[in-house]
Amino acid sequence: MGGYAGKILRINLTEGKVSTEPLSPELAKNYLSGRGLGGKMWFDEVDTDVDALAPENKIFISTGALTGTNAPTSGRYMVVTKSPLNGAIAASNSGGYWGAQLKFAGYDMVILEGKAANPVYIAINDDKVEIKDAGHLWGQDVYATTKAVMQEFGDEKAKVLTIGPAGENRSLLASIMNDKFRAAGRSGVGAVMGSKNLKAIVVRGTGKVDNADPDEMKKILSEALGKLKENGVTGQGLGTYGTAVLVNIINENGILPFKNFQESYDPEADKISGETMTANHLIKKDACYRCPIACGRYSKWEGGEGAGPEYEAVWSFGADCGIHDFDAVHVANDLCNKLGMDSISAGCTIATAMELVQRGFVKPEELEGIPLEFGNAQGMVEWTRKMGLGEGFGAKLAMGSYRLAESYGVPELSMSVKKLDIPAYDPRGIQGHGLQYATSNRGGCHVRGYMVSPEILGLPEKLDKDSLEGKAAWVKIFQDLTAVIDSLGLCLFSSFALGLSDYRAIVNAVTGSDYTDAELLACGERIWNLERLQNLRIGMTKADDTLPTRLLKVEIPAGPSKGSVHRLPELLPAYYTERGWDESGVPTAETLKNLGI
Amino acid sequence: MGGYAGKILRINLTEGKVSTEPLSPELAKNYLSGRGLGGKMWFDEVDTDVDALAPENKIFISTGALTGTNAPTSGRYMVVTKSPLNGAIAASNSGGYWGAQLKFAGYDMVILEGKAANPVYIAINDDKVEIKDAGHLWGQDVYATTKAVMQEFGDEKAKVLTIGPAGENRSLLASIMNDKFRAAGRSGVGAVMGSKNLKAIVVRGTGKVDNADPDEMKKILSEALGKLKENGVTGQGLGTYGTAVLVNIINENGILPFKNFQESYDPEADKISGETMTANHLIKKDACYRCPIACGRYSKWEGGEGAGPEYEAVWSFGADCGIHDFDAVHVANDLCNKLGMDSISAGCTIATAMELVQRGFVKPEELEGIPLEFGNAQGMVEWTRKMGLGEGFGAKLAMGSYRLAESYGVPELSMSVKKLDIPAYDPRGIQGHGLQYATSNRGGCHVRGYMVSPEILGLPEKLDKDSLEGKAAWVKIFQDLTAVIDSLGLCLFSSFALGLSDYRAIVNAVTGSDYTDAELLACGERIWNLERLQNLRIGMTKADDTLPTRLLKVEIPAGPSKGSVHRLPELLPAYYTERGWDESGVPTAETLKNLGI
Repeated sequence: MGGYAGKILRINLTEGKVSTEPLSPELAKNYLSGRGLGGKMWFDEVDTDVDALAPENKIFISTGALTGTNAPTSGRYMVVTKSPLNGAIAASNSGGYWGAQLKFAGYDMVILEGKAANPVYIAINDDKVEIKDAGHLWGQDVYATTKAVMQEFGDEKAKVLTIGPAGENRSLLASIMNDKFRAAGRSGVGAVMGSKNLKAIVVRGTGKVDNADPDEMKKILSEALGKLKENGVTGQGLGTYGTAVLVNIINENGILPFKNFQESYDPEADKISGETMTANHLIKKDACYRCPIACGRYSKWEGGEGAGPEYEAVWSFGADCGIHDFDAVHVANDLCNKLGMDSISAGCTIATAMELVQRGFVKPEELEGIPLEFGNAQGMVEWTRKMGLGEGFGAKLAMGSYRLAESYGVPELSMSVKKLDIPAYDPRGIQGHGLQYATSNRGGCHVRGYMVSPEILGLPEKLDKDSLEGKAAWVKIFQDLTAVIDSLGLCLFSSFALGLSDYRAIVNAVTGSDYTDAELLACGERIWNLERLQNLRIGMTKADDTLPTRLLKVEIPAGPSKGSVHRLPELLPAYYTERGWDESGVPTAETLKNLGI
Repeated sequence: MGGYAGKILRINLTEGKVSTEPLSPELAKNYLSGRGLGGKMWFDEVDTDVDALAPENKIFISTGALTGTNAPTSGRYMVVTKSPLNGAIAASNSGGYWGAQLKFAGYDMVILEGKAANPVYIAINDDKVEIKDAGHLWGQDVYATTKAVMQEFGDEKAKVLTIGPAGENRSLLASIMNDKFRAAGRSGVGAVMGSKNLKAIVVRGTGKVDNADPDEMKKILSEALGKLKENGVTGQGLGTYGTAVLVNIINENGILPFKNFQESYDPEADKISGETMTANHLIKKDACYRCPIACGRYSKWEGGEGAGPEYEAVWSFGADCGIHDFDAVHVANDLCNKLGMDSISAGCTIATAMELVQRGFVKPEELEGIPLEFGNAQGMVEWTRKMGLGEGFGAKLAMGSYRLAESYGVPELSMSVKKLDIPAYDPRGIQGHGLQYATSNRGGCHVRGYMVSPEILGLPEKLDKDSLEGKAAWVKIFQDLTAVIDSLGLCLFSSFALGLSDYRAIVNAVTGSDYTDAELLACGERIWNLERLQNLRIGMTKADDTLPTRLLKVEIPAGPSKGSVHRLPELLPAYYTERGWDESGVPTAETLKNLGI
C-alpha cells in the first residue's frame, strides 16, 4: 500500500506514554487519511460531551494518503479535534513541510491524549520519540520557539510545529503553526494543544514514501503538472500575485465585505490588492512541499519582513476593518503568525469590535486610550497584539467575535456561522457560496466547498452567482470533493485545475487502490455525513444551518451587487434533499446505510 | 536616480582600509552597472599584465542598475575580475538574495583590492563595515561557513557570500557561492577571492531602493509579469521541471553531448531528465529575489537533501560522463555547492579525464584504485570530492580540463574555448550557438548570447538550427542584449518572455532615464567591445575565436544531428563584419568612436 506509512503514533501526555499501532487498511479504504480518518477515529474514540479543553479531548494530527509523495501539492496535514469555539469538528488544514516530514518519519498520524503535568514538547526522530520539558519555551512566540527547538534538536532538516502565546492562553482564535509561517488556523485548535500543556512537536524523518506504480505515476504527474500550469488561476494568478490576486476580482463583483459587512464594495481596494503587494512588498514567492503553484509570499514592510498576508488576512485586517494601510495589514498578519492566531477570525473580531464601538456598545473607558475605529490602522495593529497576548480588552477579543458581541447583548453583530467568522465573500452576492457557509460542518468556512470557483472564477464552468439554479447540487459535490482532497493531503487550490478523475488516477497509482470516480467521491460524502452526525450528537440542529441576520435581511447598500440578500430559505430544503437528509437536516437511515456508516 | 544606490564601497585588504566613493552618473549612463560598470572600472584600474592571482588584481562585485528593485528577477550581481583560467574578463553572475541585500545596505558595488595578511571576512551592516578574522573559517566548506558567519553576525536577515576549500586552494574551477546554493560559478573567480585571503562577505541592509516613477512601474510590472507567465518557457517549463526540462528537448535535437562530446545523443537521457527529477527528487521549488519563474530546485537524494542540480550540472556529471545514476549526479552537484566549484567545468573536467583514461593517457597508478571510466557513478562522485579538496590526482583535476589534457600533450581533448569548458549543447548541431561559443569574450560560455532560445525553443522566433543564414547578426544582437540584461542585474531567463522594449521601459521607469531602445542596446555593444579590447590587450587574437577540433572536423556519429560539423570558418567573417571589426577581429576606430570608447 504505497502513499500511506501504515503506522500511527499515539502519545498519552498524562502518562508520558508513547506507542504505535498499525493503520487500519479497511478504515483507510473508506475514509482515506487526513481529515477523513482523523475524523472517524476522533468520532469513535472521544465521548460526545467532553469539554474541548479537557484532558479527555484528543488531537489527531493526520497526514493525507498522498502527503509526502510526489503528487503535486502533497504537503498538507489536518488537525482534527473538538473545537473549543463551537464543539463541532475542528479540522484545520496546513501546508509547508511538517506534514511530509512526519510521513518520512514513518507515521500517518499522531494522536495526542491527556494533559502533561508541566509544559512539554515532543521530539520525533524516526523511531525515536521523546517527551521533553518545555518550561523554558512556554511564553515564547512562534519564531523564537521554532528557533530554540531547532537548535536543541540539532538537525537543520527537522520541521517544527508549535503554538504561540495565544494557544497557551486558550484563546479561541489560537492556531497551530508549522514551518514558522504556515497555520492550521481555524476553530481554535491551538487552544486545545495549549490545554494539554503541549508547546511544540519537532519531527525529522529519513524514510521514503513508496509509490505503488512509479512509472504510471510519472505519466500522471506530467499530465497533472501540465494542467496546473495551463490553468489561469494555478498557473498564473496565484503564483504571480499570491492569493491576494482575489482582492480586485472579488471587489469588482461587489462581494468584498467592507467594515464588518456593512458594505460590500471598497472603492479603495486596489491599495491592498495583490498587484500592489507585488509592486511594493514582495521579496520572493514561496512554495510548500511539492507545490508548483507557489502562492506563498515572502515580503517586506515598514519595519520588518516575513510571510506576506494571504487574501483572507488582507481582507480581514484591511477592507473588513476599513483599512488601506498595507504596511499595517502586513504587521497585523505577522503578529498572527508570531503569536499563533487565526488571521481570519482575528481580523473579523477586530472588525466586529469596531462596529461595537461605532454603535456605542463598547465604552471608551474599556479601551485604555487605544483607538478602535474603522480605518484606524495604528489601533488595529495594537489591538491585534493585545488580542494575541490576552492583555486588557484584548483578552475579550481573544475569545472571538461571537462571544464578544454576545457579551454586549448583540450576537447578531458577529458575522459568523456556528460562531466561526465568515471569510471574505459576502454571501448576499454569491448564493451558492452562502449556502456552503450555512451548511459547513465546522461553521463559517470558505474551504469546505469553495463555490467562488464556479460562481466567480468560472472553474470548472461559469455559474451565475446570483442564481439559485442547481446550486444545492453543486454545493454538495464541492463539499464532498473537498473532503476527498483534504483526506488525500493535497491543497484545495489544485482543484482549480484538477478534477475528480485526476485525483482518482493519482491515488490509485500511488496507493495501488482501484477506486472508481464514484467510489472516491463516496469517501467524501461519507466523511461529510460523519461530521454532520457529530454536530447532531452535540445538539446542533437545522437552526444552526443559517447566516447572520444582516446577510439574510439587509440588502447590500451599494456597488455591483447592490440590492441583494442571501436567499437561504429557498436553498436549504433542496440541499437537504440532495444530501439524502430529512427536512430537519438529519441523514436518513438509508443514506447512512448506503454510505456504510 | 532611482534603482542605483549611488555609492561604491572600496576595501583594500592589504591596508585594511575601507572607503566609499560616489557612483559616476556618466559611467552609469553608458555602462549601466553590474557587468558593464564593473568591467569598465576593472578595465581602467587594473594593469594588463597583472597576474590574476596577484594582490594587484581587483575584484568588482557589482549589482545591476535594477538589482533590489521590484523589477522581475532583479536579484542578481556580477563578479568581475581577471580570470586565472585564461586572463580574460571573468564576469560571473549569480542570483539568490545577496545582491539585493548589498543594494539595501546602500552600495552598488564592492571593490576588493590587495591581499589580507591572514584569512579575513568582511561584515557589512549598512554603513558599518568591518574586516574580521577568519582563521577559524579557513578550511570550512560553504555550508559550515555560511552557518558560522550567520551566527557571528547575529541577524537572520543577513546574507552570506563565501568561497569553499576549492577557492582557498586556488582551484581554477573555484566559484563564489552566496545564499548557500547560488554560484557565481565560472572562470575561477573563487580562486581570486582565495588569493586575497578573503573567505566571505556577510551583508545586511535596511535601506530601500527608490523607483523614479512608482505608478508607471506598477503598470509596466503588471505587463511584464503577464508576459513571463504566459510564456511557455518562463511560465511553464522552467518552473515546473527546473532548468533540467531541457534534457529531453536538447537530446531530441541530437545536441546533448555524451561522453565528452564523442557522441551527441543519449538514448537513456530521460533517466536524468527534469521530468524524472520532478517525479523522484523534488521537494520544493525555489525562487531568487523577486523571481516569478522559480526554476530553482530543493531536492532529496539517497543520503541527503539540498539544492538540486541545474540542467548544466545534470548534463556535465550525467550525460557528459556517460552516467544515468541520478542520485550520484545530485551528490556531485551538492559537492560543488559545498566545496565551492563550478559545476559545469567540474563535470566537464571529469569527462575529459574519463576520455584520457579511455585512450590510455592517464595511467592506472595515478588513480589510487578509484575508477574513472565513463559510466562509473561511484568514481565520478569520489573524484568530484577529491577535485574539490585538491587531493592526489584531484589536484590535477582542480586546474580544469584544458590544463589536464595539455599535461598529457592532447589539449584538443579538452572541449573548451579559451580554456573555459563548453556547456551542454553540441555546436555541431546548432550553428548560431556554436558561433557564440567561439566568440564569447570569456570563453566557452552559453550565457553570453543564448542562441538556443531561437534555434531550439523558437523564442522570439524559430530559426533553423543547422542553417547559417542570418546567424552572425542574431548572435551579435543576442550578445549585446545579454550584456544589457547582465548590467541591469536581471536574470537572463527573463529574456525568453521579455524583449528590448520591455527592458527599456523598466529601466526608464525605475531610474528616471530616457533611453531609447537603440541607446540601451548600444550600452550592450559598448560593453561587449570593451571586453573584446581586454582580450586583445592580453594577446588573444582571431585564432582564439575557435572551437575544439573535434567539433569542427568530426561529424556527429549518430542521432538526430548525425553528420553535422560546426561551420565556423563560414560564419566568423560575417560576424566580424556585423560587429564593425576588421578581418583580424579588431574593432575599427570608427566602431570604437561610434560607441564612445
